[in-house]
Amino acid sequence: MSGKVVVLLSGGLDSATALAVARAQGYACHALSFDYGQRHEAELEAARRVAAQLGVEEHRILRLGLDQIGGSALTDPGIAVPETPQQGIPVTYVPARNTIFLSLALGWAEVLGARDLFIGVNAVDYSGYPDCRPEYIAAFQKLANLATKAGVEGDEFRIHAPLIEMSKAEIIATGTRLGVDYSLTVSCYQADAQGRACGRCDSCRLRAEGFAAAGVPDPTRYR
Amino acid sequence: MSGKVVVLLSGGLDSATALAVARAQGYACHALSFDYGQRHEAELEAARRVAAQLGVEEHRILRLGLDQIGGSALTDPGIAVPETPQQGIPVTYVPARNTIFLSLALGWAEVLGARDLFIGVNAVDYSGYPDCRPEYIAAFQKLANLATKAGVEGDEFRIHAPLIEMSKAEIIATGTRLGVDYSLTVSCYQADAQGRACGRCDSCRLRAEGFAAAGVPDPTRYR
Repeated sequence: MSGKVVVLLSGGLDSATALAVARAQGYACHALSFDYGQRHEAELEAARRVAAQLGVEEHRILRLGLDQIGGSALTDPGIAVPETPQQGIPVTYVPARNTIFLSLALGWAEVLGARDLFIGVNAVDYSGYPDCRPEYIAAFQKLANLATKAGVEGDEFRIHAPLIEMSKAEIIATGTRLGVDYSLTVSCYQADAQGRACGRCDSCRLRAEGFAAAGVPDPTRYR
Repeated sequence: MSGKVVVLLSGGLDSATALAVARAQGYACHALSFDYGQRHEAELEAARRVAAQLGVEEHRILRLGLDQIGGSALTDPGIAVPETPQQGIPVTYVPARNTIFLSLALGWAEVLGARDLFIGVNAVDYSGYPDCRPEYIAAFQKLANLATKAGVEGDEFRIHAPLIEMSKAEIIATGTRLGVDYSLTVSCYQADAQGRACGRCDSCRLRAEGFAAAGVPDPTRYR
């Protein structure tokens, strides 16, 4: 395997692992993050550290006014992050987020000449977001090849979601084997400016359970 | 018909007509434009004028760093806009542009409670962009309903492309009947700061031919 890929890198545990998987497959990795008005800006600092630790060709951070749209606890300061498990799709859901992120990754990939995109979505130990499911990823790949010059010319895009059917423990075991330093990552939905986790939100809960189940010491810095 | 819609409004002739069609169908229109580092900033001024003339509930302009991605004559000052007809998909193609724009419109629509999106793409008198074809629009609609909370809960999104099978002359005749003031619109890929058209690019050529074929006086301001 070889060639260029674009990897969506949020600075969280899953996307760091997806980057490590792409790298282990021999790809030259171009990491893409978004400064989208998220509450947890410490995520972007984490993304920078992860990109540096794992080694990427380039790490680009795109400005994107999702806070102008709102509608989520992650982009609207007026909506609180829940600290107890919720029924259904939670208020941390950001409308169309993965579609927006993959679209921009697709545009950059086409310019770079990359035909492979990696995204660290997971449909097992996750928050129930609709845009993390295999059928969503398949539909995006189909769209990508109808939407683009490369796609219609037969030089097709592939959307890789290597973690999609892994448990959080399997993700952590995989990343640990591939050298991910999880102490650099921030998963918490309401991390403080130093990247320290709340230990109470959905994302913190899934992460802590994952380290416990994987039998890997949890390096998360809690406040 | 009624309810809220999000209409993608570029400030060009097609999107102004799509807005007029949505309005004529009784929708409360929320117009969305992008400040994406396009060469022809006069487009955004045109979008503001069109939104004001046709009457919208709200006109939002989202910042989006497509110039950080480049790869198109419309976003990279180093790539010239062609002034003679080209073979194949031209260099004015912006990688994944309609996918990026529709994704952001989808996110805003979900927050607003709108389930209908209007886009003024056209697959007859157009520049050959892949993301203007009916199969692309159908694939995006499918994706939208897999990607979103509303979609998976059965409250489905519909992507309307009312101009997709019209000739440019039919678009102009439709808009004229619905009261669009085309003197406010800017289609030129390299309009000057006052919105005056070059008269030579692909977009100017299609527009001028459309007015001639429709038998409508061409109100375009050329420089």
